[in-house]
Amino acid sequence: MEEIESPTLLLNWQTAKANIDRMVEKARRHQLRLRPHLKTAQCLQIARYFEEKGVEQFTCSSFSMASFFAEGGIKDITVAFPVNVRETKTINALAAQIRLNILAVNAESLALLKNDLRHPVGVFLKIDVGTHRTGLLPEDETGIGACLREIESSNLLTFRGFLAHAGHSYTARSSEEILNVHHESTGILRRLKSKYQHRYPGLELSTGDTPTCSLADEGWNGIDEIRPGNFVFYDLMQVALGSCRMKDVAVALACPVVALHPDRHEAIVYGGGVHLSKDRMAWKGNEIFGLPVELTKSGWKLPEPGNYVRSLSQEHGVLHCSPHFFEKLKTGSLTGILPVHSCMMVDIADEYLLTTGERWEKM
Amino acid sequence: MEEIESPTLLLNWQTAKANIDRMVEKARRHQLRLRPHLKTAQCLQIARYFEEKGVEQFTCSSFSMASFFAEGGIKDITVAFPVNVRETKTINALAAQIRLNILAVNAESLALLKNDLRHPVGVFLKIDVGTHRTGLLPEDETGIGACLREIESSNLLTFRGFLAHAGHSYTARSSEEILNVHHESTGILRRLKSKYQHRYPGLELSTGDTPTCSLADEGWNGIDEIRPGNFVFYDLMQVALGSCRMKDVAVALACPVVALHPDRHEAIVYGGGVHLSKDRMAWKGNEIFGLPVELTKSGWKLPEPGNYVRSLSQEHGVLHCSPHFFEKLKTGSLTGILPVHSCMMVDIADEYLLTTGERWEKM
Repeated sequence: MEEIESPTLLLNWQTAKANIDRMVEKARRHQLRLRPHLKTAQCLQIARYFEEKGVEQFTCSSFSMASFFAEGGIKDITVAFPVNVRETKTINALAAQIRLNILAVNAESLALLKNDLRHPVGVFLKIDVGTHRTGLLPEDETGIGACLREIESSNLLTFRGFLAHAGHSYTARSSEEILNVHHESTGILRRLKSKYQHRYPGLELSTGDTPTCSLADEGWNGIDEIRPGNFVFYDLMQVALGSCRMKDVAVALACPVVALHPDRHEAIVYGGGVHLSKDRMAWKGNEIFGLPVELTKSGWKLPEPGNYVRSLSQEHGVLHCSPHFFEKLKTGSLTGILPVHSCMMVDIADEYLLTTGERWEKM
Repeated sequence: MEEIESPTLLLNWQTAKANIDRMVEKARRHQLRLRPHLKTAQCLQIARYFEEKGVEQFTCSSFSMASFFAEGGIKDITVAFPVNVRETKTINALAAQIRLNILAVNAESLALLKNDLRHPVGVFLKIDVGTHRTGLLPEDETGIGACLREIESSNLLTFRGFLAHAGHSYTARSSEEILNVHHESTGILRRLKSKYQHRYPGLELSTGDTPTCSLADEGWNGIDEIRPGNFVFYDLMQVALGSCRMKDVAVALACPVVALHPDRHEAIVYGGGVHLSKDRMAWKGNEIFGLPVELTKSGWKLPEPGNYVRSLSQEHGVLHCSPHFFEKLKTGSLTGILPVHSCMMVDIADEYLLTTGERWEKM
């Protein structure tokens, strides 16, 4: 810690490992395949730990991310983003190398893709289970049928099943609402399975976002695979949703303190939007961009009430502090910041500094 | 354009050059030194163009950015961020190589810095002219005096003058309000100059943010230097503030269209928070994350009413479209997105693709 000069992504690997272990155990308990999403961690060492726990299939959010992990030796990846047909060259390179699944939301993309495809690829149809971001509507038999026809007309495409991301669990205001989202969205998938499994006996159902996977302890029947990613680190958004406890948050940004304003109990840190991202959320009556925490030799303490990141510019963070917390800050010292959204903060950084001192490269 | 596979930062260099030319000319007209902020462009080719126009002094927002430009041959840089004393090693390396100015907001940082300083450094005192982010209050004679004493007690530190960033111009709701901010903040600096110039006859006043520098055509007397940065590219925020016209926006993100939802006239593009940043703003009654534009061979058309980026996930952008614009979108085609905040979008990218086809590396 003493050697940190500029904003640095800290990883408490003990905490992240415990988060991973809990999800691995939960998936096992419910006989679900855990296909963790690597968009949060973006790190080979973390993928390796999953492998040690028996997890060998992964999810990525882009073909470039999949290429990074394929080069690192990962052999089975679903790119859970509507297939971008402009990347057919990358798709072919990946499909030659690993077992690759893609996502389709319409027949047009499959029609365009199959012309230039050279290697086998599995296809999941993305179903809109209520988030209304994208996906085929579950009742859209015409759309689903058109996709299935495109898949069948190509000897390189194989229908793998239906996939959903219940992203509206993130706008839930209680654990009960999250569980409602879970039961509704898995119900939609189960109905599709019973409708199509006579034609496709091997079809699978894949779902999973961190809130429902963390909270739901039932309603998993019929589901084959879950794909949470954020749970490895969690963040303040997940604490607010009830997906985890504050002590489960496994990443923080270490920031040098550069100015103190005792008149308003505000501290300025080197650590802004280009380090934390501009993600924000409501937290105890304030709009916040993160929560400051005191750093220790082995990590960080839990946040104290009255402290929050009030605003971010490109490189500045403005911390609003309680008198007690403010007194401990010195110009030239370091403070930690817990992120609103760990995926966005981690995406920006080049590497992790583990609280044990080791450095791990990131994608 | 045809070769674009994934979200790509486009630069219309003709437009950016015209923006630069206008600001160079304006500075000349008002006898101001233009010390452009490179945090927006982060690109050596763009710094070179400034040099062609006679501009040889620059501003950076971090010592790592200053190191990048110093390696590229830039010889005079002000790091306009409260000095982070944990970076003394980098500061020494820079100060050995170039004419370096730093910013101080308190005496503590200067006291810590001077112990380890090995090469001469100029110091600007950062004045809080009303933004209340950081800086010494103009009436804080004790604070200013303490800083000046630290500077005088070191033979490597030289007092250069007072520096301000009227960041509250960004929250103005009209050009008139921006001009009020300009007159107030430059007035504060002028009063400081008359108060301290008997002791420091060479002291300079440095100010400047893109809104006031773009809009103010008077009230520059006594000011020596302006440091705008965003004006090179501008963005939707600056259009809304009246700093520029829509056709002056010089950067856009080219995004592949991956899904179309005719029922709600929404298109999904590959281009999310990790490409555009999560900056957002109010625009004609909606909260937006950017405006979609039709790409052409030589750049992009102006935005059409009824289209906006409704939401962003990590890799997804959701475009809300007018029926007319929606009809032109095809799965696998490209669309452009004008950014809410160009600095944040550009910071994320690795390179520019000029609309002429050339590629320029970024920091």
